[in-house]
Amino acid sequence: MTTTPWRIPKTKHGHKTFDHIIACGKKLFSSKGFQATSVNDIIAESGVAAGTFYIYFNDKLALYTYILNDYKKKIRDTIHQDTKHCLNRRDLEREGLKSFIRFAYQDNLAYNIIWESLFIDKSIFQDYYENFAQRYVEGLKKSHAQGEVRDVDFETLSWMLMGIANFVGLQVLFRVHVTEEELDRVADSVLDILEHGMFKRPIGS
Amino acid sequence: MTTTPWRIPKTKHGHKTFDHIIACGKKLFSSKGFQATSVNDIIAESGVAAGTFYIYFNDKLALYTYILNDYKKKIRDTIHQDTKHCLNRRDLEREGLKSFIRFAYQDNLAYNIIWESLFIDKSIFQDYYENFAQRYVEGLKKSHAQGEVRDVDFETLSWMLMGIANFVGLQVLFRVHVTEEELDRVADSVLDILEHGMFKRPIGS
Repeated sequence: MTTTPWRIPKTKHGHKTFDHIIACGKKLFSSKGFQATSVNDIIAESGVAAGTFYIYFNDKLALYTYILNDYKKKIRDTIHQDTKHCLNRRDLEREGLKSFIRFAYQDNLAYNIIWESLFIDKSIFQDYYENFAQRYVEGLKKSHAQGEVRDVDFETLSWMLMGIANFVGLQVLFRVHVTEEELDRVADSVLDILEHGMFKRPIGS
Repeated sequence: MTTTPWRIPKTKHGHKTFDHIIACGKKLFSSKGFQATSVNDIIAESGVAAGTFYIYFNDKLALYTYILNDYKKKIRDTIHQDTKHCLNRRDLEREGLKSFIRFAYQDNLAYNIIWESLFIDKSIFQDYYENFAQRYVEGLKKSHAQGEVRDVDFETLSWMLMGIANFVGLQVLFRVHVTEEELDRVADSVLDILEHGMFKRPIGS
């Protein structure tokens, strides 16, 4: 059994306090930044007793790591929910892209919190994306075996698709309003290029 | 004439001091983070008199903005240099991708400094990428007019290509050694997908 640097509460009241500390941590990490935020700032912001913070978290990094893991889980679960009806890889990529952007639009701290890991500890950032890439590669290999995806460099393709989701996500989030129609339009544009490539008259095909 | 919050030195000695302050700023911003770094930290790290810092920069944000603008210019110039021999869009994308990753490999603070803008002021981050995207769109439209690029959503394509460069860049930089052979291999993998798409038996093509 591995021990985590955080402890999940057992009571309903404990959960309420735990969630409140997390919400305050998210707010401070994304506004002031991780480095400039102290445990005392989080305690002051949340209004809990100092001892209460340490019941649940070993230190500031433990709280951050908990928040990042929670995002990883929530993003996976959300995409899974939004794509479970998809019957092929094209639909999966299309709906998965929309699901990711919609998630980031609804939780506007997601990008900040995830990318902040680059500054806190590069290895956390690296683990986060390598982990996503590994799972992506498994999925792509399965779709290749089913005759849907070409025989390409799956690792590079997985990083390309993550990069596309993240940057097309930014493009959309920079707008004031994001509608479902806009998500559909952007997803169609992306899929058109993933389907037919970007070049006219491809050489040798 | 617009005034900038920084002042470029006129003497050789001034340039040396200016460059030294910038190097210390980069080091502190990327290790401690912008928010946790004070002007006094930068002055202490660089060993200049307090007054000297203010000869060149209005404040901490002015120094950061100078550094970010310098990266923007350097990245553009480097890619321009490395791609000016390219005769078509395929070569341009291929060599441009390699050039960007090589730059980030040689200057390992580049990602940190650029992405940090997301935390300092979202509008700086947005301007940085929207500016790159605009120039990308112009280039893609030109290549489309020349019959090289398909009639696609150029804005979305530009964000896709920036996302691919950034994330495939991360994939490569996470390795300990980056060789020219490795850059070639990854660039070939990316171009294969940009050329032929990711799917087998594309529908309707």
